[in-house]
Amino acid sequence: MGVIVVGYVPKAEGRAALRLAADEAKLRGSSLVVINSHRGGREFDSQDAVQSESQLDEVRNELRDAGVEHEIRQLVRGLDPAEDMIHVAEEVSADLIVIGLRRRSPVGKLILGSNAQRILLDAPCPVLAVKAAE
Amino acid sequence: MGVIVVGYVPKAEGRAALRLAADEAKLRGSSLVVINSHRGGREFDSQDAVQSESQLDEVRNELRDAGVEHEIRQLVRGLDPAEDMIHVAEEVSADLIVIGLRRRSPVGKLILGSNAQRILLDAPCPVLAVKAAE
Repeated sequence: MGVIVVGYVPKAEGRAALRLAADEAKLRGSSLVVINSHRGGREFDSQDAVQSESQLDEVRNELRDAGVEHEIRQLVRGLDPAEDMIHVAEEVSADLIVIGLRRRSPVGKLILGSNAQRILLDAPCPVLAVKAAE
Repeated sequence: MGVIVVGYVPKAEGRAALRLAADEAKLRGSSLVVINSHRGGREFDSQDAVQSESQLDEVRNELRDAGVEHEIRQLVRGLDPAEDMIHVAEEVSADLIVIGLRRRSPVGKLILGSNAQRILLDAPCPVLAVKAAE
Protein backbone atom coordinates (compact mmCIF):
# COMPACT_ATOMS: atom_id res chain seq x y z
CA MET A 1 0.00 0.00 0.00
CA GLY A 2 1.46 3.33 -1.04
CA VAL A 3 1.78 6.42 1.11
CA ILE A 4 1.02 10.03 0.19
CA VAL A 5 2.38 12.87 2.32
CA VAL A 6 0.42 16.12 2.25
CA GLY A 7 1.29 19.49 3.76
CA TYR A 8 -1.62 21.08 5.56
CA VAL A 9 -2.15 24.63 6.76
CA PRO A 10 -5.56 25.93 7.88
CA LYS A 11 -5.90 28.17 4.83
CA ALA A 12 -7.40 27.93 1.36
CA GLU A 13 -4.24 26.41 -0.17
CA GLY A 14 -3.96 23.85 2.64
CA ARG A 15 -7.57 22.77 2.18
CA ALA A 16 -7.03 22.48 -1.59
CA ALA A 17 -3.99 20.27 -0.99
CA LEU A 18 -5.86 18.08 1.52
CA ARG A 19 -8.80 17.59 -0.84
CA LEU A 20 -6.57 16.67 -3.78
CA ALA A 21 -4.45 14.35 -1.62
CA ALA A 22 -7.59 12.54 -0.44
CA ASP A 23 -8.71 12.07 -4.07
CA GLU A 24 -5.28 10.73 -5.02
CA ALA A 25 -5.22 8.38 -2.03
CA LYS A 26 -8.56 6.92 -3.09
CA LEU A 27 -7.46 6.61 -6.72
CA ARG A 28 -4.22 4.83 -5.78
CA GLY A 29 -5.46 2.89 -2.74
CA SER A 30 -2.83 4.73 -0.69
CA SER A 31 -2.84 5.94 2.87
CA LEU A 32 -2.29 9.56 3.79
CA VAL A 33 0.11 11.25 6.20
CA VAL A 34 -1.04 14.81 6.92
CA ILE A 35 1.74 17.16 8.09
CA ASN A 36 1.09 20.43 9.85
CA SER A 37 4.49 21.91 10.47
CA HIS A 38 5.77 25.14 11.92
CA ARG A 39 8.99 26.22 13.49
CA GLY A 40 7.41 27.19 16.76
CA GLY A 41 7.76 30.40 18.73
CA ARG A 42 5.34 33.29 18.70
CA GLU A 43 6.87 35.10 15.80
CA PHE A 44 6.91 32.20 13.37
CA ASP A 45 4.17 31.24 10.92
CA SER A 46 1.50 31.36 13.57
CA GLN A 47 -1.12 31.48 10.84
CA ASP A 48 0.14 28.20 9.42
CA ALA A 49 -0.23 26.25 12.65
CA VAL A 50 -3.31 24.24 13.43
CA GLN A 51 -4.51 26.12 16.47
CA SER A 52 -7.52 24.30 17.71
CA GLU A 53 -9.20 20.95 17.96
CA SER A 54 -11.99 22.20 15.73
CA GLN A 55 -9.53 22.77 12.89
CA LEU A 56 -8.19 19.25 13.37
CA ASP A 57 -11.71 17.88 13.46
CA GLU A 58 -12.32 19.45 10.06
CA VAL A 59 -9.36 17.50 8.66
CA ARG A 60 -10.38 14.25 10.37
CA ASN A 61 -13.96 14.54 9.17
CA GLU A 62 -12.95 15.24 5.59
CA LEU A 63 -10.69 12.19 5.49
CA ARG A 64 -13.15 9.94 7.28
CA ASP A 65 -15.90 10.97 4.85
CA ALA A 66 -13.51 10.23 1.97
CA GLY A 67 -12.82 6.81 3.50
CA VAL A 68 -9.06 7.37 3.46
CA GLU A 69 -6.72 5.69 5.95
CA HIS A 70 -4.65 8.44 7.51
CA GLU A 71 -2.52 9.81 10.28
CA ILE A 72 -2.05 13.45 11.28
CA ARG A 73 1.28 14.74 12.52
CA GLN A 74 1.73 18.16 14.07
CA LEU A 75 5.41 19.05 14.02
CA VAL A 76 6.99 21.87 15.97
CA ARG A 77 10.66 20.96 15.99
CA GLY A 78 12.37 24.11 14.85
CA LEU A 79 12.56 22.97 11.24
CA ASP A 80 11.28 24.68 8.14
CA PRO A 81 8.09 23.09 6.81
CA ALA A 82 10.05 21.97 3.73
CA GLU A 83 12.54 20.08 5.90
CA ASP A 84 9.76 18.47 7.92
CA MET A 85 7.93 17.38 4.76
CA ILE A 86 11.05 15.89 3.19
CA HIS A 87 12.10 14.07 6.37
CA VAL A 88 8.68 12.49 6.75
CA ALA A 89 8.48 11.60 3.06
CA GLU A 90 11.83 9.80 3.37
CA GLU A 91 10.81 8.10 6.63
CA VAL A 92 7.58 6.64 5.23
CA SER A 93 9.00 6.05 1.70
CA ALA A 94 6.28 8.25 0.24
CA ASP A 95 5.21 7.70 -3.36
CA LEU A 96 3.91 11.24 -3.68
CA ILE A 97 3.95 14.58 -1.88
CA VAL A 98 1.01 16.96 -2.28
CA ILE A 99 1.44 20.68 -1.57
CA GLY A 100 -0.76 23.74 -1.84
CA LEU A 101 0.70 26.81 -3.53
CA ARG A 102 0.14 30.31 -2.36
CA ARG A 103 0.81 33.08 -4.85
CA ARG A 104 3.02 35.75 -3.36
CA SER A 105 3.18 39.04 -5.13
CA PRO A 106 4.75 41.71 -2.96
CA VAL A 107 5.41 43.89 -6.01
CA GLY A 108 2.87 42.41 -8.36
CA LYS A 109 5.22 39.66 -9.45
CA LEU A 110 4.25 36.05 -9.00
CA ILE A 111 6.85 33.91 -7.29
CA LEU A 112 6.91 30.56 -5.61
CA GLY A 113 7.50 30.51 -1.86
CA SER A 114 10.82 29.16 -0.65
CA ASN A 115 9.25 26.16 1.08
CA ALA A 116 7.47 25.09 -2.10
CA GLN A 117 10.70 25.48 -4.09
CA ARG A 118 12.69 23.40 -1.62
CA ILE A 119 10.11 20.63 -1.53
CA LEU A 120 9.98 20.52 -5.34
CA LEU A 121 13.77 20.38 -5.66
CA ASP A 122 14.63 18.12 -2.73
CA ALA A 123 11.68 15.73 -2.53
CA PRO A 124 12.55 12.02 -2.74
CA CYS A 125 9.44 11.44 -4.92
CA PRO A 126 7.21 13.31 -7.39
CA VAL A 127 5.40 16.37 -6.05
CA LEU A 128 1.83 17.32 -6.94
CA ALA A 129 1.17 21.05 -6.56
CA VAL A 130 -2.26 22.67 -6.45
CA LYS A 131 -3.38 26.27 -6.04
CA ALA A 132 -6.33 27.35 -3.95
CA ALA A 133 -9.42 28.10 -6.02
CA GLU A 134 -9.53 31.84 -6.68
CA MET B 1 -12.05 10.51 -20.31
CA GLY B 2 -9.54 12.87 -18.74
CA VAL B 3 -6.56 14.47 -20.42
CA ILE B 4 -3.01 14.80 -19.11
CA VAL B 5 -0.61 17.29 -20.71
CA VAL B 6 3.09 16.51 -20.41
CA GLY B 7 6.09 18.63 -21.35
CA TYR B 8 8.73 16.67 -23.19
CA VAL B 9 12.34 17.50 -23.96
CA PRO B 10 14.83 14.89 -25.21
CA LYS B 11 16.77 14.89 -21.93
CA ALA B 12 16.70 12.94 -18.68
CA GLU B 13 14.08 15.20 -17.08
CA GLY B 14 11.85 14.99 -20.17
CA ARG B 15 12.01 11.22 -20.20
CA ALA B 16 11.21 11.11 -16.46
CA ALA B 17 8.16 13.30 -17.07
CA LEU B 18 6.99 11.18 -20.01
CA ARG B 19 7.31 7.96 -18.03
CA LEU B 20 5.42 9.34 -15.03
CA ALA B 21 2.73 10.87 -17.28
CA ALA B 22 2.21 7.49 -18.98
CA ASP B 23 1.83 5.81 -15.56
CA GLU B 24 -0.68 8.45 -14.48
CA ALA B 25 -2.64 8.14 -17.74
CA LYS B 26 -2.97 4.37 -17.19
CA LEU B 27 -3.96 4.84 -13.56
CA ARG B 28 -6.64 7.41 -14.41
CA GLY B 29 -7.76 6.04 -17.77
CA SER B 30 -6.75 9.36 -19.30
CA SER B 31 -5.28 10.22 -22.67
CA LEU B 32 -1.99 12.03 -23.04
CA VAL B 33 -0.99 15.17 -24.96
CA VAL B 34 2.80 15.35 -25.31
CA ILE B 35 4.16 18.87 -25.89
CA ASN B 36 7.62 19.57 -27.25
CA SER B 37 7.88 23.32 -27.33
CA HIS B 38 10.60 25.76 -28.22
CA ARG B 39 10.64 29.35 -29.32
CA GLY B 40 12.39 28.63 -32.56
CA GLY B 41 15.45 30.26 -34.08
CA ARG B 42 18.96 28.90 -33.94
CA GLU B 43 19.93 30.52 -30.72
CA PHE B 44 17.00 29.32 -28.64
CA ASP B 45 16.78 26.11 -26.60
CA SER B 46 18.03 24.00 -29.45
CA GLN B 47 18.77 21.23 -26.98
CA ASP B 48 15.15 21.15 -25.88
CA ALA B 49 13.74 20.60 -29.36
CA VAL B 50 12.99 17.16 -30.69
CA GLN B 51 15.45 17.07 -33.57
CA SER B 52 14.87 13.81 -35.32
CA GLU B 53 12.32 11.19 -36.16
CA SER B 54 14.25 8.69 -34.06
CA GLN B 55 13.69 10.82 -30.95
CA LEU B 56 9.99 10.98 -31.75
CA ASP B 57 9.90 7.24 -32.36
CA GLU B 58 11.27 6.75 -28.87
CA VAL B 59 8.31 8.67 -27.46
CA ARG B 60 5.78 6.88 -29.67
CA ASN B 61 7.16 3.46 -28.78
CA GLU B 62 7.14 4.16 -25.07
CA LEU B 63 3.50 5.27 -25.15
CA ARG B 64 2.41 2.46 -27.46
CA ASP B 65 4.08 -0.09 -25.17
CA ALA B 66 2.31 1.52 -22.22
CA GLY B 67 -1.00 1.25 -24.11
CA VAL B 68 -1.75 4.94 -23.63
CA GLU B 69 -3.89 6.91 -26.09
CA HIS B 70 -1.88 9.96 -27.07
CA GLU B 71 -1.06 12.77 -29.43
CA ILE B 72 2.27 14.52 -29.88
CA ARG B 73 2.47 18.24 -30.61
CA GLN B 74 5.66 19.99 -31.65
CA LEU B 75 5.22 23.71 -31.14
CA VAL B 76 7.50 26.38 -32.53
CA ARG B 77 5.41 29.53 -32.34
CA GLY B 78 7.67 32.01 -30.64
CA LEU B 79 6.20 31.32 -27.20
CA ASP B 80 7.96 30.25 -24.05
CA PRO B 81 7.44 26.57 -23.24
CA ALA B 82 5.43 27.64 -20.17
CA GLU B 83 3.02 29.63 -22.33
CA ASP B 84 2.63 26.78 -24.79
CA MET B 85 1.95 24.29 -21.99
CA ILE B 86 -0.65 26.51 -20.35
CA HIS B 87 -2.41 27.32 -23.63
CA VAL B 88 -2.70 23.66 -24.54
CA ALA B 89 -3.80 22.68 -21.03
CA GLU B 90 -6.59 25.26 -21.28
CA GLU B 91 -7.54 24.19 -24.79
CA VAL B 92 -7.93 20.51 -23.92
CA SER B 93 -9.29 21.16 -20.39
CA ALA B 94 -6.45 19.16 -18.90
CA ASP B 95 -6.93 17.48 -15.53
CA LEU B 96 -3.22 17.38 -14.87
CA ILE B 97 0.07 18.76 -16.21
CA VAL B 98 3.25 16.73 -15.75
CA ILE B 99 6.65 18.44 -15.92
CA GLY B 100 10.24 17.35 -15.44
CA LEU B 101 12.45 19.48 -13.24
CA ARG B 102 16.05 20.26 -13.98
CA ARG B 103 18.19 21.45 -11.11
CA ARG B 104 20.06 24.59 -12.01
CA SER B 105 22.90 25.63 -9.81
CA PRO B 106 25.08 28.24 -11.48
CA VAL B 107 26.57 29.21 -8.11
CA GLY B 108 25.86 26.02 -6.21
CA LYS B 109 22.38 27.17 -5.25
CA LEU B 110 19.40 25.12 -6.31
CA ILE B 111 16.68 27.07 -8.00
CA LEU B 112 13.66 26.26 -10.11
CA GLY B 113 13.76 27.30 -13.75
CA SER B 114 11.46 30.13 -14.80
CA ASN B 115 9.37 27.89 -17.07
CA ALA B 116 8.68 25.46 -14.24
CA GLN B 117 7.75 28.33 -11.92
CA ARG B 118 5.36 29.85 -14.45
CA ILE B 119 3.66 26.54 -15.14
CA LEU B 120 3.24 25.86 -11.42
CA LEU B 121 1.80 29.32 -10.77
CA ASP B 122 -0.34 29.79 -13.88
CA ALA B 123 -1.55 26.28 -14.67
CA PRO B 124 -5.33 25.85 -14.87
CA CYS B 125 -5.03 22.47 -13.11
CA PRO B 126 -2.75 20.66 -10.62
CA VAL B 127 0.86 20.14 -11.71
CA LEU B 128 2.87 17.00 -11.05
CA ALA B 129 6.62 17.65 -10.98
CA VAL B 130 9.32 14.99 -11.18
CA LYS B 131 13.08 15.16 -11.23
CA ALA B 132 15.31 13.05 -13.41
CA ALA B 133 16.87 10.12 -11.56
CA GLU B 134 20.33 11.14 -10.42
